[in-house]
Amino acid sequence: MSSLEACPELRRRAQALYERLKREGEAAGYYLNPDVEFVLDLMEGLLANEERYGYWSCPCRLADGIREKDLDIICPCDYRDPDLDEYGACYCALYVSEEIARGEKEPQPVPERRGTDVGVGLVPTPGPSAAEHEEELVGPSTSSGHRFTRSGLPVWRCKVCGYLCARPQPPLKCPICKADRDRFERFA
Amino acid sequence: MSSLEACPELRRRAQALYERLKREGEAAGYYLNPDVEFVLDLMEGLLANEERYGYWSCPCRLADGIREKDLDIICPCDYRDPDLDEYGACYCALYVSEEIARGEKEPQPVPERRGTDVGVGLVPTPGPSAAEHEEELVGPSTSSGHRFTRSGLPVWRCKVCGYLCARPQPPLKCPICKADRDRFERFA
Amino acid sequence: MSSLEACPELRRRAQALYERLKREGEAAGYYLNPDVEFVLDLMEGLLANEERYGYWSCPCRLADGIREKDLDIICPCDYRDPDLDEYGACYCALYVSEEIARGEKEPQPVPERRGTDVGVGLVPTPGPSAAEHEEELVGPSTSSGHRFTRSGLPVWRCKVCGYLCARPQPPLKCPICKADRDRFERFA
Repeated sequence: MSSLEACPELRRRAQALYERLKREGEAAGYYLNPDVEFVLDLMEGLLANEERYGYWSCPCRLADGIREKDLDIICPCDYRDPDLDEYGACYCALYVSEEIARGEKEPQPVPERRGTDVGVGLVPTPGPSAAEHEEELVGPSTSSGHRFTRSGLPVWRCKVCGYLCARPQPPLKCPICKADRDRFERFA
Repeated sequence: MSSLEACPELRRRAQALYERLKREGEAAGYYLNPDVEFVLDLMEGLLANEERYGYWSCPCRLADGIREKDLDIICPCDYRDPDLDEYGACYCALYVSEEIARGEKEPQPVPERRGTDVGVGLVPTPGPSAAEHEEELVGPSTSSGHRFTRSGLPVWRCKVCGYLCARPQPPLKCPICKADRDRFERFA
Repeated sequence: MSSLEACPELRRRAQALYERLKREGEAAGYYLNPDVEFVLDLMEGLLANEERYGYWSCPCRLADGIREKDLDIICPCDYRDPDLDEYGACYCALYVSEEIARGEKEPQPVPERRGTDVGVGLVPTPGPSAAEHEEELVGPSTSSGHRFTRSGLPVWRCKVCGYLCARPQPPLKCPICKADRDRFERFA
C-alpha cells in the first residue's frame, strides 16, 4: 500500500488523519501504534474505504458495503476496547496499549472477535441469549425497569466527576475529568 | 435588528459568539443555520437577553425574566433536540439539520412545543401523567429503584465507548468518541 | 515553598501545569484559587508528589505512597466536589467556588472529610452500611438490578443534552453542552 510516490495528495490526507486520530485518542486515553508508516498505511485504507463506501470501514476486514451491516466494524470498531483489554491492541493494531505505544512491548496477533461472541464484551452474568438480546435492543420500551442493563454490561462510575458509562471494563481515562481507570467504581 | 452601523461593538460580540457556538456545535454534531446574517441577528438577541435577564433566554420567545421560570428556554432550549429530530430545526432555526446546513433543504416553520407537551420528547410508553412526572422530579429519593428512568426517557449507549445518555433519540454524534447516531443502542 | 529562585525549571513546570488545570477546569465549570502564587506553590507540591510517588497525591495531605491506598486523594480528589458544594473550596483551596474565584468572598477552612464519612457524599437515603457498600463495589455482578445505584448516589440528567452522571449534586456545568447546574433534573 506504499503510495507515497503514487499519490502525494492521499499521503497528505493520511498524515492529517493520523494527526487528528492521535490527538483525539490521546485526549481520551487511547494510543496509536508507534510505527508511523504502518499507521499511515492504515489511514490510507480508511480513506479508501470512505471513498468506496462512505464510511470508515475497518481497513483490515472485508466490508459488506452496506452501512447497516458494517456498523460494528466502522473504525473505531465495537471490538476495539475489549481487544485492547485482552490483547493490548485492536484487530488492526491501529490502537495499542500504552506499553506497546512506548515501545516496551511488541503487539501480538489479535484473533477475530467478530461473529464469535454472543455479544461484545458480555460479562459472564446470567444474561439473555443472542436472540433475546437482539429482541431487547429493538423491543418495545417498558418502564418496569427490573433490570438496569439490557445488554448485560456493567455500568462504571468515575469517583471524581460522576461520569457513567457501560462497558466491559472502565475506560483507561475518564473522558470528562481525565482520572485514571483505577478511580472508577462499579455502579450497576 | 440590523445594528451593524448602529453598534459595531455589539456586532463584534455577536460575531465572536457565533464563532464559538459554531465551533462547539460542530464538535458535538450540531449545525448552525447557514444564513450567517440571520444567525448574527439571533446572536444579538441572545446578547441583549443576557444583559436584560442575566441569561441566554431564547431570542424568539417571550421571557418571563425570572430564571427559574425560563429555564427550559435558555439557549440551547430543552426543545432543541426533539425539534431537530422532528422538524430539522429548532424553534428559532438557529440549530438546523445537516441537510439544511448544507443548503440541500430549506428550513420549515417549527410549531411551538413549549407548554403543549406532557413532557419534552416523552416516548409513547405507559408513563406517568404530567402531575406524577412533576412529582417524581421533585419527589423524595428512594433507593428501591423499581424503575430506572423517572422521566420515562430511554437511555442510549454508544457501542464504541459506552457513553450513556437519556434522550428521546440518541445524539447525532457521540460527544465522547464522535461515533454517529446509528452506533448507539437502546440500553434501558 | 517559594522556589522561584531556587529552581526556575520547577517554577516553569508549575506555571505550565497551572495554565493547564485552569483551562481544563474552566471548560468543566471549575475555578482555581485566584491567588496565583498560592496556586503555583500547590502545583509545585503536585509535581513533587508526582516525582516521589508517580501520581498527583494531594499536596495538603500525607500520602501513603502506595497508589492503591492513595487513590481517593489523587488530585482532583474524591472529596473535591462535596467540599465545593458544602464549603465553597476543596480541602487545599486549590479549587474554589465562582464567588471566591471572583474575589467576592474569602475561602474558609475546610475540615478533613477523608476517613470521617461512611461514603463520599452519600445522600441520606436508606443505603447500605459501609461493609455492604464495600462488598457491593467488589461483589459479583448480578443482573437482577432491583436497585439502580449501588453507591446510593442520585443520578442527574442534563435536560439539554441528556448527559447522565452520579454525584451528590449535579455538576456546576454540564461537561458536554455547558448548560448550568439548574438545568439538571433528578433521573434516578
